[in-house]
Amino acid sequence: MEFKLKGKVVFFATHNIHKFNEARSILSPYGIAVGMIKVKALEIQSDSLSEIATASVTDTFNRCHLPVIVEDAGLFIDALKGFPGPYAAYVYKTIGNKGLLKLMENVNDRKATFQSAIAFYNGQSAPMCFEGEVTGEIAFEERLGSGNSGFGFDPVFQPVGSFKVFAEMTIEEKNRFSHRASAFRKFAEWYKR
Amino acid sequence: MEFKLKGKVVFFATHNIHKFNEARSILSPYGIAVGMIKVKALEIQSDSLSEIATASVTDTFNRCHLPVIVEDAGLFIDALKGFPGPYAAYVYKTIGNKGLLKLMENVNDRKATFQSAIAFYNGQSAPMCFEGEVTGEIAFEERLGSGNSGFGFDPVFQPVGSFKVFAEMTIEEKNRFSHRASAFRKFAEWYKR
Repeated sequence: MEFKLKGKVVFFATHNIHKFNEARSILSPYGIAVGMIKVKALEIQSDSLSEIATASVTDTFNRCHLPVIVEDAGLFIDALKGFPGPYAAYVYKTIGNKGLLKLMENVNDRKATFQSAIAFYNGQSAPMCFEGEVTGEIAFEERLGSGNSGFGFDPVFQPVGSFKVFAEMTIEEKNRFSHRASAFRKFAEWYKR
Repeated sequence: MEFKLKGKVVFFATHNIHKFNEARSILSPYGIAVGMIKVKALEIQSDSLSEIATASVTDTFNRCHLPVIVEDAGLFIDALKGFPGPYAAYVYKTIGNKGLLKLMENVNDRKATFQSAIAFYNGQSAPMCFEGEVTGEIAFEERLGSGNSGFGFDPVFQPVGSFKVFAEMTIEEKNRFSHRASAFRKFAEWYKR
């Protein structure tokens, strides 16, 4: 079976519908259609997000043979020496926002950085990697607004230049600031050609 | 070049001299000589230590072509839903024992489990995996005795059946309790044949 598609298409390998919706909101204006696929792919341990994403995308492509993107994100808190770093997903699943805020009790330096690395591969030449980051602060309590209500550490991360945490923003607002949006925009600029 | 060795020999791929010394203390009485090699091998992200160790040992063997062991360990704290789990090394490097104790402030349920998975591969048939675990409690403060003084979370982990934390024990005492010793003993029983 062969598909004929107008414009470009890419598949985002993720189990996270929130990430997928953010990606779609960025890519649509570029005329890039994005599909969500759930593939269990290899994920390596590394302090480098781009290394994790690049290793993963090759394996993912070998399982689906589609032009595919994987994303790896991390949250690096200065006062905690980079914790939770690339293991943000496991840390979220276990101690969550409450644990993070407990670690930050009586800590004045609230600076933190969200980073995202997107790797793309379609089986030709080498995987391409695009990175984005946003600097901000860890809030003093969880905040959930009328926005997208967020996922992961969104309720405690307030980017520089906003009075809202990510969870208080709509997808469009969050995409003006977010690490993931910034990486996806770089990808789109390259992929639309 | 060919070596002739009396008895059995195995190489332990680790960068941690404390782990190596523990392994040597267990394996020597079995007549198994153990060498330390430092190989940077693939480490995957997974909630399963045996999956991490098994994936890693194949890659390690392909880099060194020696009969080789890799070990992966994790600390699973009940009240923290299994945190820090398989990412104990990164968590230790960032928030350390002080961070762990802060997360456990005002927590009554101190139960925790140390787990170890050892994978062995010599290029023949499939990798073998051996597991060990020890149950205990998270202490209320860091303790360093006149023992091995410990590494990682040893200063805050007190196994069931002892009044000492791991860091207060000699290597021989720790090996009577520890997850790693238990996994290495299983390996030794199998390997000495």
